[in-house]
Amino acid sequence: MDMLQLIERKRDGAAHDAQEIAWLVGGIVDETIPDYQLSAWLMAVVWRGMTAQETAALTEAMARSGETLDLSSLPGTTVDKHSTGGVGDKTSLVVCPLVTACGLTVAKMSGRGLGHTGGTLDKLESIPGLTVDLSIERFMRQARDVGLVIAGASADLAPADKRLYALRDVTGTVPSLPLIASSIMSKKIAAGSSAIALDVKVGAGAFMRDRSDARTLANAMVDLGARAGRRTAALLTDMDQPLGMRVGNALEVTEAIETLSGQGPPDFLELCMAVAGVMLVAAGHAEDLQGTQSELQKALDSGRARDVFAEMVEAQGGNGRVVDDQSLLPRAHANAVLTAPRSGYIGRVDALAVGHACVATGAGRRHKGAEVDPSAGVVLRVKAGDLVRSGQELAVVHAADSAAAAAGLELLRGAFFIQDESPPASPVVLEIIDPG
Amino acid sequence: MDMLQLIERKRDGAAHDAQEIAWLVGGIVDETIPDYQLSAWLMAVVWRGMTAQETAALTEAMARSGETLDLSSLPGTTVDKHSTGGVGDKTSLVVCPLVTACGLTVAKMSGRGLGHTGGTLDKLESIPGLTVDLSIERFMRQARDVGLVIAGASADLAPADKRLYALRDVTGTVPSLPLIASSIMSKKIAAGSSAIALDVKVGAGAFMRDRSDARTLANAMVDLGARAGRRTAALLTDMDQPLGMRVGNALEVTEAIETLSGQGPPDFLELCMAVAGVMLVAAGHAEDLQGTQSELQKALDSGRARDVFAEMVEAQGGNGRVVDDQSLLPRAHANAVLTAPRSGYIGRVDALAVGHACVATGAGRRHKGAEVDPSAGVVLRVKAGDLVRSGQELAVVHAADSAAAAAGLELLRGAFFIQDESPPASPVVLEIIDPG
Repeated sequence: MDMLQLIERKRDGAAHDAQEIAWLVGGIVDETIPDYQLSAWLMAVVWRGMTAQETAALTEAMARSGETLDLSSLPGTTVDKHSTGGVGDKTSLVVCPLVTACGLTVAKMSGRGLGHTGGTLDKLESIPGLTVDLSIERFMRQARDVGLVIAGASADLAPADKRLYALRDVTGTVPSLPLIASSIMSKKIAAGSSAIALDVKVGAGAFMRDRSDARTLANAMVDLGARAGRRTAALLTDMDQPLGMRVGNALEVTEAIETLSGQGPPDFLELCMAVAGVMLVAAGHAEDLQGTQSELQKALDSGRARDVFAEMVEAQGGNGRVVDDQSLLPRAHANAVLTAPRSGYIGRVDALAVGHACVATGAGRRHKGAEVDPSAGVVLRVKAGDLVRSGQELAVVHAADSAAAAAGLELLRGAFFIQDESPPASPVVLEIIDPG
Repeated sequence: MDMLQLIERKRDGAAHDAQEIAWLVGGIVDETIPDYQLSAWLMAVVWRGMTAQETAALTEAMARSGETLDLSSLPGTTVDKHSTGGVGDKTSLVVCPLVTACGLTVAKMSGRGLGHTGGTLDKLESIPGLTVDLSIERFMRQARDVGLVIAGASADLAPADKRLYALRDVTGTVPSLPLIASSIMSKKIAAGSSAIALDVKVGAGAFMRDRSDARTLANAMVDLGARAGRRTAALLTDMDQPLGMRVGNALEVTEAIETLSGQGPPDFLELCMAVAGVMLVAAGHAEDLQGTQSELQKALDSGRARDVFAEMVEAQGGNGRVVDDQSLLPRAHANAVLTAPRSGYIGRVDALAVGHACVATGAGRRHKGAEVDPSAGVVLRVKAGDLVRSGQELAVVHAADSAAAAAGLELLRGAFFIQDESPPASPVVLEIIDPG
């Protein structure tokens, strides 16, 4: 086999067989295939697509391309969760303690933020003392003892995907459904949980702008999970607006704790109840979403989910008292307030614009490896449907200094649309795709 | 500007403006754009194509990306010729002396063979002592003194095309009309001749299998030449069968000399008269092809074209007596004869199969930079339409040893199609596309 032939076959619209895919993934890992051939092949895949069989073969080969976690020794059913990324998406910080409180085990490897979307690891690291760099032994021990661990990649999971993704990022070959689906699912499969819930975001602040594309992606990933023997379910959820009222690392930890304490914003709480419910269903813990809601409510009301969160924080070296006292989190030195230029209804708060504003405050990173300011971000005072008066506060920017706050404020202006008519209510959870 | 944006724009079907193309070509030459981004862009171009404006901008920017030859000081009209490559295509060796004998000046930079197609430089180098490595000074002096010089790239012409072509070759991005047209024409424009004739080959042994694709390519190149202020004309010519009866470097030099001596095979002579005629028309030396034929016939019959060839050989360090004594050329040590397995008409001699057989004899190169055996190749005894008896000689393989001869013979078997019916006559010159 040679790479030029594979490129030509894909360029001409052929489907690769499993043997060709296995050879390709081998060459990606051992670096015998040069970047310039891989990127031509990637663009041919963006052009020609991949069949379900090809995508499954690619996913499987990438999942097996490095270490794989064996979570079978852990008590309870192991469940993982993935979000395609959004603005203010602190969902993992709430749903993982929630399902642990219901008896599942969450041993989760998470990622960092890039561009306008945040990352769970950055949020967790805003808790003083907390580390996400755990050895495999410590990761497994915490999963066993606490039932919940969220860490960085402790193992070399799916290195083929790592190389491919880095290349896609700089060659305009990210937007391909089979490449996206196989990238996500190869990592989730290698990470070892027996059930997987996928939160596929749709809207201005999401990678997927179009609901039907998002549905196709969700179905493809549920199919890939099933082929790999994992119970997989997915939700399509709104990312036109930011989730909740707080965007930025420490700010989102505060909001997650408020939500675990029964005081979260309604849109974010609604999403968390749905995602956690889908995790329970995927894990075989309940028949359907409806059957999960009272148990989840009890886990919230009893404070059990909040306790699990505190135990996780302590186990990872952080101060568990943060659940009672959020002043332990880093605070920004500078603020800037955005006020309404006119009276009217908030028609929309553009998630992408808020995300870009957050990057400007220092809360996000423009390039991989850049530092983030844990205290920076944006606190929204209003969401779509709210009636505001001219001069009323729309949002507060938090940043390390007044220059960064001003930069964030400038970008934030374009995020708010004020209109005379009350906008139609927009649901947070759009669709649920049950395990097949 | 950044390369990722350019890739994404092309991926999404947009056309680049002249500024983007100029920036791109600059980054190709100074190597600030990495191969992996270029190859993704190239595949996006294969997918999305380029407009005539884009192709013209790319051609112009590549033509200017390195040195350009100024031939304006040379006497007579300068004319260049390009063939898209074929099997047994020794046309330059005949048509360039022919048009020089008619008063034009040919200062030509030529290439080497690769794969099943031969290269003019390899053929010339089979003449003992002859060099194609000329300094610019020597190249210009010979053009002035002899009216004809054929050399390797004495100047760094179109380095952007060089880098792009090397990458296309290994990334499956060769078959793209705008990339092919701009690659050929950027080099021809940089090479400085004021008139250009393009021999676009069509058929089994050519890069273009389909006549309508070849016509589109020819029209695009004629247009690019005109936009650059060069009088450009093109021919579509047959490459289903090899040209003439001899394929291989010294073997083709012999056949070129025979043709210059009035003893060439009819199909090859016909092609040479047409190509040389189109060169004269493109140079403004005659109104139409018809008006060139008697002058060309005189240049042949008088021996003047043959003398020009000998003068060129001498000027480049070779032995000019080769035109009288072809035993001065290297001869193969081993032969193998292919005979007809049955009686019948030769329906077709497959050019591609003959080309592959020649590579096996050592006459061609599989990889850039490989050595070629000047004496090796194939001599055909029959062409399409000939009636043969079972056991009659179809071809003789020439090689350095019996193993190479046997390897060539094996591949040659598939080249001959014998049938009961006499095949329809197939013309050598299919179409002529005059300067616009």
